[in-house]
Amino acid sequence: MNAFADRVARINDLLCTVNLLNWDARVTMPKRGAETRGHQVATLKGLAREAILDPALRDLALAEHEAAHDPVRRRGAEAVLQAIDHHARIPAKLLRMQAERSALAGAAWAEARAASDFSIFRPHLEAVVGLARETADALGHDGHSYDPMVQVFEPGETAASLSALFDRLRAGILPILDAARGRPAPRTDFLYRHYPPETQQAYCAGLARDLGYDFGRGRLDTAVHPFEISFTREDVRITSRWRPDYLPMAIFGTIHETGHALYEMGVDPAHTRGVHATDLVGLYAVGGTSFGMHESQSRLLENHVGRSPGFWSAQFAGLRDAFPEQLRDVSEAEWVAAINRVEPGLIRVEADELSYDLHVILRVRIEMALMDGSLAVADLPEAWNAAMREDLGLSVPDDARGCLQDVHWSSGYIGSFPTYTIGNLTAARIMAHLDKSAPGLRAAADRGDTAPLRAALGQLVWRHGRSKSRAELQAELDGPADDPTDYLGYLRGKFG
Amino acid sequence: MNAFADRVARINDLLCTVNLLNWDARVTMPKRGAETRGHQVATLKGLAREAILDPALRDLALAEHEAAHDPVRRRGAEAVLQAIDHHARIPAKLLRMQAERSALAGAAWAEARAASDFSIFRPHLEAVVGLARETADALGHDGHSYDPMVQVFEPGETAASLSALFDRLRAGILPILDAARGRPAPRTDFLYRHYPPETQQAYCAGLARDLGYDFGRGRLDTAVHPFEISFTREDVRITSRWRPDYLPMAIFGTIHETGHALYEMGVDPAHTRGVHATDLVGLYAVGGTSFGMHESQSRLLENHVGRSPGFWSAQFAGLRDAFPEQLRDVSEAEWVAAINRVEPGLIRVEADELSYDLHVILRVRIEMALMDGSLAVADLPEAWNAAMREDLGLSVPDDARGCLQDVHWSSGYIGSFPTYTIGNLTAARIMAHLDKSAPGLRAAADRGDTAPLRAALGQLVWRHGRSKSRAELQAELDGPADDPTDYLGYLRGKFG
Repeated sequence: MNAFADRVARINDLLCTVNLLNWDARVTMPKRGAETRGHQVATLKGLAREAILDPALRDLALAEHEAAHDPVRRRGAEAVLQAIDHHARIPAKLLRMQAERSALAGAAWAEARAASDFSIFRPHLEAVVGLARETADALGHDGHSYDPMVQVFEPGETAASLSALFDRLRAGILPILDAARGRPAPRTDFLYRHYPPETQQAYCAGLARDLGYDFGRGRLDTAVHPFEISFTREDVRITSRWRPDYLPMAIFGTIHETGHALYEMGVDPAHTRGVHATDLVGLYAVGGTSFGMHESQSRLLENHVGRSPGFWSAQFAGLRDAFPEQLRDVSEAEWVAAINRVEPGLIRVEADELSYDLHVILRVRIEMALMDGSLAVADLPEAWNAAMREDLGLSVPDDARGCLQDVHWSSGYIGSFPTYTIGNLTAARIMAHLDKSAPGLRAAADRGDTAPLRAALGQLVWRHGRSKSRAELQAELDGPADDPTDYLGYLRGKFG
Repeated sequence: MNAFADRVARINDLLCTVNLLNWDARVTMPKRGAETRGHQVATLKGLAREAILDPALRDLALAEHEAAHDPVRRRGAEAVLQAIDHHARIPAKLLRMQAERSALAGAAWAEARAASDFSIFRPHLEAVVGLARETADALGHDGHSYDPMVQVFEPGETAASLSALFDRLRAGILPILDAARGRPAPRTDFLYRHYPPETQQAYCAGLARDLGYDFGRGRLDTAVHPFEISFTREDVRITSRWRPDYLPMAIFGTIHETGHALYEMGVDPAHTRGVHATDLVGLYAVGGTSFGMHESQSRLLENHVGRSPGFWSAQFAGLRDAFPEQLRDVSEAEWVAAINRVEPGLIRVEADELSYDLHVILRVRIEMALMDGSLAVADLPEAWNAAMREDLGLSVPDDARGCLQDVHWSSGYIGSFPTYTIGNLTAARIMAHLDKSAPGLRAAADRGDTAPLRAALGQLVWRHGRSKSRAELQAELDGPADDPTDYLGYLRGKFG
C-alpha cells in the first residue's frame, strides 16, 4: 500500500470503529455506559480529524490527484481533499461537543420516547440545534443555514432546491391521497394479530437471506429504531423490531435495511478495504455515494419489490408456513392488498407508501425552521401536531407518537430527512429506466425472481460505491434529475 | 482535566475501544469480518502506542510524578512512565503484526476446535510463538524468555519463581488428589440431564444479580470461551456458555466471570474515568492491579462462595424452581456434594477444584518450553497428551478436548496461565486473612448472605484498582507472599 492509501485506510479504520461504538450503543450497550461511550466516540472522531488535517495527508492527496490516471483513484483523492476542507472549517472543540452531546441525547431520547415526555429530550435537542447552527456557520453558507447541513448528506441540494421540489411533490401527492381515501379500505384485521417476536425475527432473517443478504458478512439484531451500519463491506449489520401485534413493521423494516445492506455489500472490493463514514464526510470510494442514493436502494427493495404482487407470489407460502394460525383465513391477494393499503397514520416508519413523503416533508420544514430560528425547540410539539393535522388530518395523542418518534435529531443528524424522499424519487427513476432498458427484469421480479433485478442494481449503482456521484449515476438514467414526474407517475399508477 | 490526565484519558478511550472491538469479535461479529477487524485493532493499538510514545506525554508524566503528593496520582504517573518504557522497547511493526495475527488466529482456533483439527491452528500458533519470542527479546531478559512475557500479566514473577512455586504446589496437591480419589464418588447423574440453554442463561443472570453484578452497567452474553471485559467501570460485560447436557459449566462460569466483573465495577470512581488495558501495559489507576489478583476475585467467588454449602442453603430453592423436572429427586446436600466432587477430567474450565491447578501447571510448562524452544509447536499435541497422562492419569481422545480447548494462545496471550493458580493462592490467602480479622463475614456467608464478604473485598481489593500493586495488597494480609501453605491448607481441609 502506498503512503496515501495507508493513511486513508487508517482513517477509515477509525471511522469504522466509531460505527461499531455507535452500533453497540444502540444494540448492546448497558444504559450506564452512555457517558463514557460519548468520550470514546469523541476521542476517536478527534483522532480521525487530526489524521485528516495532518498537512502530510493533504500533500499526499494532491500528489495522488495529479498522478492518478484512473478515475476511481482520482475521485478518491478528491474526496479526501473535500474532507480536509470540510474538517478544516469545523473547530475541534465543536466536533467534540457534538460527539459527547449525541451520546447523552441518544439516551435521553430513548427515555423520553419510552415515557412520552418531550421535556426530558427538550434541553438535549436545544443543545443539538445550537451545535448544528454553529456547524452551519463554520461551514459557511450564502443563504439558509440549512444548506451546509443538508449537503453533508446530499451534495448539491439546498433549502431552496428542496423547498421547490417538495412543494411540487406535495401538491402532486395530496390529490392522489384524497382519491385513494375515497375508495373502500381492504381487509387488514389479520395484520394486528399476535405474532411472536422470535418467529418474526427468524422469518425476517430468512427473507433477508432470500433477498441476497449475506449472513457470513452480517447479522440481524433488534433495535428501537431500525438501521443498517457497516464496519467494512465484510461486516454490514442490520436491525429491525418485532412488534407482537403488528406484523408489517418487522417485515418491511427488514426489507428496507436489507436494501441498504445490499448496496454496502455490493461495492466492488477492488476499490479499497476502507468504508464510508456516514456521519462525517465521506472518504474514498466505498459505501453509498449519498444518503439519497442509499435510500433509493432501500426504498426500491421495500416498495417496488417488497410490496409487489410478484414478490409475494413466491413468498406468501413461506409466510403462511411461519404463521399458520394467524394467516389461516387470509389469501395471498388479501395480504398484498393489506400491505399496500392507504391509511395515513402517525408514525413515519409505519406509514403507507403514498403518505410517507408527507411525513418527510413535515420534518424537513421543521428542520429548516429550527435552523433559521423561526421555530423554537419548545414549540416543536405544537408545530408538529399542527402539521400532522393539516397534511394528514390526524391528531397526535402523545409525543411518543409525534415529535419523539425518530432517532435522527438525537444523533445530531439535522439535514438527513430530505434524503428519504430523494430516495423515493431516485428509486422510481431507476425502475423507469430499467423498465425501458431491460424489461425482462420486471418480468422476472413478477415471477418472484429478484436476482436479475439485484444484478442490474449491482451493475448500475452498488459496485461504484462512492466512485461516482449521485448526479453522475443519474446522468446514466433517462429524464431530468430531481424531478418528481417519474415518482408521481408511479404513485398515480399504483394508487390513482 | 489537566493536560496529563487528558492525554491518559484519550489513550484509555482508545484501549477501551480495542476491548469493544475484541468483545464484538468474540460475541457478535460475523465470521468474514475477522480480517478487517484485525486491521482496525492494529490501527487503534498503533495510535495508542503513538500517543504513549509522544515525548510530550513523558514530560507531562515526569512533571506529574514530581508534583503529585497524592500517592494515587503518583502511582498513575509511574504506571504511565512504565508503559512508555515498555512500548519504547517494542517496535511498531511487531505490535501491528501481533494484532493482525490475533484476529486471524482467533478465527482459525475456533474453526480448528470445532473440527478438532490441530493442523488448522498449527501455522497460526507457530506465528504467535515466533512473535512472542521476538517480543521477549525486544523487552529484554537475563534468564528465560518467558520472564518478560509473564511480567506483562504478573509483575514480579519469573520462570524460575513460578517453577519453584508450582513444583511445591504440585507436590502438595498430588497426595491430596490420590486420597480423594480413594473415597466413594458422590451421585452426579443429575448434572448431565437436559438443561435448556435459555433457562440456564436466565437463571445465571439472576445468580449474577444476587452476587452483586449490576446489569445497569453490564450484560451477560454467550461465548465459546467465557470471559469478562470492560470498556470503563460503567460498562463491564460477562459471557458464559450453556451446555444443554451439563449444568455446572454455565453456573460456575457465570459466577467466575461475575467475580472478575465485581472487581472492575468496584473500583473507586474517583480514580479516573479511564480503564485498565489488559493486553498492553496498564495505564493509570483503574482495573485490576494484576491478572493474578483479578483471578483471585473470580476464584474466590467461584469456589470459596459458589461451591460452599452456605451459599446453596440460600440458593438451592431458586435453582430447583428454575429446573423443577431435572432436580426433583435431588437434595441440597446431593447438589453440594456433586459440585464439589473430585473427578479429574480433560477440560480445564470444567475441572474440579482440586485438580484444576494441575491443568494450569501443565500449560505453564508447555508455554515455557515453547518459548525456550525445547518444544516445537508441531509436537504440542503429543506433549500435552503425555502430561495429561502423567499428572491426571487420563488419555486425550482428540485435540478439541486437548490442546485446542483454550482461547488464550490464539489471542497471543503467552504468560497468562500462571495467573490462574496465583489467583487460587491469593484467594486462599485473602480468606484466611478475613477469617482471622473479621470472622463474622464467614458466618454471614454460611447463612447465604454474601454482602458483608463482598463489602470487605471491596474495601480490601476492588476500590484500589491499579493504585496498589499485588505485592502492596498482599503486604496487608498475614503470612508470606507467593507461598502455597494457606492454599494447600484449604485444599486439605476440604478434600484431604
